[in-house]
Amino acid sequence: MTNIAKGLEGVLFTESKLTFINGSEGILTHLGIPIQEWAQSSTFEELSLALLNGQLPSAAELAAFDAHLKANRAIPEKLVEEIASFPRTVAPMQALRTAVSYLGLFDPQAEETSEAARRDISIRLIAQFSTIIAAIARSREGQPVVAPRSDLTHAGNFLYMLTGKEPSAEQTRLFDIALVLHADHGMNASTFTAIATSSTLSDMYSCVVSAIGALKGPLHGGANEAVMDMLDEVGVPEKAEAYINAKLDAKEKIMGVGHRVYKYFDPRSRVLRDYAEVVANKEGKSNYYQILETIEKVVVDRIGSKGIYPNVDFYSGTVYSDLGIGKEYFTPIFALARISGWCASVMEYARDNRLLRPDAVYTGATDAHYVKLQDRI
Amino acid sequence: MTNIAKGLEGVLFTESKLTFINGSEGILTHLGIPIQEWAQSSTFEELSLALLNGQLPSAAELAAFDAHLKANRAIPEKLVEEIASFPRTVAPMQALRTAVSYLGLFDPQAEETSEAARRDISIRLIAQFSTIIAAIARSREGQPVVAPRSDLTHAGNFLYMLTGKEPSAEQTRLFDIALVLHADHGMNASTFTAIATSSTLSDMYSCVVSAIGALKGPLHGGANEAVMDMLDEVGVPEKAEAYINAKLDAKEKIMGVGHRVYKYFDPRSRVLRDYAEVVANKEGKSNYYQILETIEKVVVDRIGSKGIYPNVDFYSGTVYSDLGIGKEYFTPIFALARISGWCASVMEYARDNRLLRPDAVYTGATDAHYVKLQDRI
Repeated sequence: MTNIAKGLEGVLFTESKLTFINGSEGILTHLGIPIQEWAQSSTFEELSLALLNGQLPSAAELAAFDAHLKANRAIPEKLVEEIASFPRTVAPMQALRTAVSYLGLFDPQAEETSEAARRDISIRLIAQFSTIIAAIARSREGQPVVAPRSDLTHAGNFLYMLTGKEPSAEQTRLFDIALVLHADHGMNASTFTAIATSSTLSDMYSCVVSAIGALKGPLHGGANEAVMDMLDEVGVPEKAEAYINAKLDAKEKIMGVGHRVYKYFDPRSRVLRDYAEVVANKEGKSNYYQILETIEKVVVDRIGSKGIYPNVDFYSGTVYSDLGIGKEYFTPIFALARISGWCASVMEYARDNRLLRPDAVYTGATDAHYVKLQDRI
Repeated sequence: MTNIAKGLEGVLFTESKLTFINGSEGILTHLGIPIQEWAQSSTFEELSLALLNGQLPSAAELAAFDAHLKANRAIPEKLVEEIASFPRTVAPMQALRTAVSYLGLFDPQAEETSEAARRDISIRLIAQFSTIIAAIARSREGQPVVAPRSDLTHAGNFLYMLTGKEPSAEQTRLFDIALVLHADHGMNASTFTAIATSSTLSDMYSCVVSAIGALKGPLHGGANEAVMDMLDEVGVPEKAEAYINAKLDAKEKIMGVGHRVYKYFDPRSRVLRDYAEVVANKEGKSNYYQILETIEKVVVDRIGSKGIYPNVDFYSGTVYSDLGIGKEYFTPIFALARISGWCASVMEYARDNRLLRPDAVYTGATDAHYVKLQDRI
């Protein structure tokens, strides 16, 4: 029997100094610092720079990075027009994949793969992702595109461009935390796909476009949208307990529950849950939030002992919905955060690159020969 | 010491019935049939269908597939206009990546991932790749785009759309053989990237766009363009022997020589060499061809015993150049052939899908803590 590493699970293919995950103890750190501390004290801007640099930046470095991001928020007018001309029915992630690929056509640095060029492109992509995603959402909803503002934070400016309204401090903070929690997560499928693309020494735009394509799949970025579908199916909080018990009795898969890596509480879900609770207690618990509380309780009681717990998708969907964001934009918002992890991971891998070329076990015909068309049965 | 499988070399992650490679003996088969037989007796259309189906088609199946391809050669007028509006300076592979992503926006089936939908999309992509690539090349050269014809073969129609002239039977046959030789090659980096994207259950367009991004890198699809750069550097046949001896003496890397998998003659290179020789003997040996003959002789004499031989890129560049194709379009032409392998491999993997999620060895800081900005040194 040949040993096949299905899904490459457990296969170690490189070294990384960025992110550590201990799934059985529910630990996630970036640069050795627990995710809880990042969420509590840092910002998406700072974590992004720390991932790119491999260390906490100085105050001057952070200020320069922040200014650089703000100066690069605008996207070419031609791209805004392109996005507005996309068919309304197009899936937002198809639109994002196309828009980012298109953006590369107008970047004179696009083909450069030096460390310095990769860094410059990464910073622009982090800044411009928010403008592109907001433009896609506005255009799909038939609303005019809102130009970025440079007096708001990355999180605040995105919510402003998306909704056309300046968000409250609490909303901005909650969304910033969501971005921090999603910025990087080790060798997840989209980051790995970005690295696979990069391993041929391809350019940053190609790496990021590949990652968008991978994130788009329902087994990866689509999960929090699926959680919202479930909450919509439940409808009202009173029906939540019966709904989830019936699902568990029938041994059906429950969206947002369980994780390939975490066999204990996903630490990101705890952080998000705590902040969501603060906002809920202040602004009132939404229907979604109440349904979620019930489902969480039942799931932890009944199957938590098997290592199956609510994951971060379970909470992020509700948080985004309560911020007024439609569920069809959840996966693009995942990309809005993960772009930092993609870029940092590609840059790290490129420093000690090795072409990725695993192999398959051949199980097909042997010693076959071409048969002329007229002789085939 | 933790064992790291750098480049995933030798790691087996799935089963496949499509392609078998024995690098030390120089064997390549598709569906168990040697590549030499495919090149000699089959066509790109037939091999594409055989890869998609996992078996040689019947005459009726092949006729239906061929008709299906021909009927789908046209691309939306809006995409033709888009391609014409791309900046002239853009790398053809960036243009291809963007155009294929854009094409997905206009395909109502784009989001479907059933076996039947994947198949339909694959056939359209195989047909439309030729039209897109020809449109990119014509637009970049400032020439009007040529509409596809349905009375020519896949290879003949592509050359016609590219050059505006109907190719000879020999040219069509030679180009068809080149397509056959490049249609699939096991778990190469672009096919693997397509599968990584597909493993999240993402859509066909995303898989193919990812693959284009990976193929674009100089360690993968860019090699035959680099061979031509070398031939241009040599300039005239009389200088070839001294040039290559100097390179070998200095232990410098020679483009188009050696292969990650093949430690003997790449069987594709022999087939291509033989057909190129037939054409050269008939139409006269081009400068490129003569330089290549000399380099091949020196390389085989001096380092062949170390398992380093000319690879397929070594010959394909010369063949394409002698067909009047500019070297900047060699990688898109590689994609024109490999699209069949990408689609067939994604479809095969999707039948027994497993999310690809390998891991990295964490070598960064442990037990670190967030330090307030003002307290950092």
